[in-house]
Amino acid sequence: MGRVTQRRKVHKYVLDGSPHALEFPVRHREDILAVEEPLEIRIGQLSFSVTMRTPGDDFDLVAGFLVSEGIIWTPDQLVSLRFCAGEDEDGVQTFNVVEAQLRPDVELPATGRNVFTSSSCGICGTDSIEAVRKSSHYSPAADPMTVPVDVLASLPDRLREAQAVFDTTGGVHAAGLFRIADDGGVELLCLREDVGRHNAVDKVVGWALRERLLPLTGLVLQVSGRASFELVQKAALAGIPVLTAVSAPSSLAAELAEASGMTLAGFSRGTSLNVYAGQGRITLPAVEVPAEAAAEAPG
Amino acid sequence: MGRVTQRRKVHKYVLDGSPHALEFPVRHREDILAVEEPLEIRIGQLSFSVTMRTPGDDFDLVAGFLVSEGIIWTPDQLVSLRFCAGEDEDGVQTFNVVEAQLRPDVELPATGRNVFTSSSCGICGTDSIEAVRKSSHYSPAADPMTVPVDVLASLPDRLREAQAVFDTTGGVHAAGLFRIADDGGVELLCLREDVGRHNAVDKVVGWALRERLLPLTGLVLQVSGRASFELVQKAALAGIPVLTAVSAPSSLAAELAEASGMTLAGFSRGTSLNVYAGQGRITLPAVEVPAEAAAEAPG
Repeated sequence: MGRVTQRRKVHKYVLDGSPHALEFPVRHREDILAVEEPLEIRIGQLSFSVTMRTPGDDFDLVAGFLVSEGIIWTPDQLVSLRFCAGEDEDGVQTFNVVEAQLRPDVELPATGRNVFTSSSCGICGTDSIEAVRKSSHYSPAADPMTVPVDVLASLPDRLREAQAVFDTTGGVHAAGLFRIADDGGVELLCLREDVGRHNAVDKVVGWALRERLLPLTGLVLQVSGRASFELVQKAALAGIPVLTAVSAPSSLAAELAEASGMTLAGFSRGTSLNVYAGQGRITLPAVEVPAEAAAEAPG
Repeated sequence: MGRVTQRRKVHKYVLDGSPHALEFPVRHREDILAVEEPLEIRIGQLSFSVTMRTPGDDFDLVAGFLVSEGIIWTPDQLVSLRFCAGEDEDGVQTFNVVEAQLRPDVELPATGRNVFTSSSCGICGTDSIEAVRKSSHYSPAADPMTVPVDVLASLPDRLREAQAVFDTTGGVHAAGLFRIADDGGVELLCLREDVGRHNAVDKVVGWALRERLLPLTGLVLQVSGRASFELVQKAALAGIPVLTAVSAPSSLAAELAEASGMTLAGFSRGTSLNVYAGQGRITLPAVEVPAEAAAEAPG
């Protein structure tokens, strides 16, 4: 998968205040960048959308995009995925066009535009939330799962540990789907990376569709960075009950999570996190009485 | 501007290992979130695009979007901007629809889609770069400006200091347009924030168009976070010679910067930064001989 990262000559300047740094501040070296390339998504012969993404897991990306847009929600609605022939100026297949064949009864939205942000008049956040709810075929609200807060707060570290690409580029977003066992054991079911956080989530959702795992009941989606309306939308349409982010959510992300009956956590940093919606699913760790305190207790 | 941030009740969990934290890990408090709301951009009667954005500076956002998409590049091509009437369910004007009137000779692309990622066949990064170059009316390549590396590396701190909203939400991206004087003095010409980094850049570019400052020769654009193809595209179409980011660029961002004759820096962290394209504009700080060394030098 040489297309995921690319080597590039960079000029690194270090200004750490030492005389050495002032005299020789420039180091010429190779850096490894995350690749970004356009991907055209076609539905049959129709060019439906073009997104900038990191190549790799493109079938997952397209399948997840179709779920996130509310177009499909079961694997049998997706008949096939294939790369179209397409060559660059050197005659090399680009692998940048994917054609999806959908079951004939699948309805397409009128435009390729994100259907959840469009509205005929008086467009507002409430309309966007209502559009997501009307398009949802799964209901995170009905999911009775719970998750211990300390386990939830540990997921960003687990995600970073699993991010092989992150270590080399520092420039890739990640989304990880986790199962939390009753004993607190954590299993990473799927990790996907991309220069775009929304693409990383689409890749996870598309993987799940193709593995016939939708809806993703009882699971947690951990994302790097912030939580926007769009990310909550994608999680909601896949039936994910708990979404947690490393940084801040937006107002509309929190409102959509609440309206969808999802749990939304943010600022998840190992020893602390904030819960913005659905805190009923968060359980507290058992308080262990220190051994010496137990020994001192009257018997 | 109550619409830029929103108060929301959050449940903050702290797990710092202290017995107090284990027994009372939850604090209920109010948090301040960055607002995210849809904005519909109309050109005349035509609904052209819908974007999720932080309300505020919406005319700048629409003007900058039109520049970034290569539709307009001079202020006289933009006849007027106005908020359309539009009410939510409570009869409150939403201020979420902006209508732009363009000069009649302005050509519109066939679809509302980002024109620089579309291609009829064999879509690839090279096509996207070529599309940007063909649509550019300004040439950053011809800009002779230079910038001392230590001044460039100081801009992220200056941007953060100027970010009033950042301090309260932690969830907002920023773009700042800086002028660097010959004596190294720094002037922040325009700062714009948004939940979406691309929107923050559009707001800066739109401000510049409306202030009749395009092309933005001799100036530096500092952005929070990463540098994608899309951000370099926006800077290139505004004629900005130097774009610098706090985190990593993508491969295609570096390639577009190089093809456009722009300087692109990343991982800008106060005492170090990497230059991925156009390093000829980067100058080194003067090496000051320490006073004691000068005194010891043979006279």
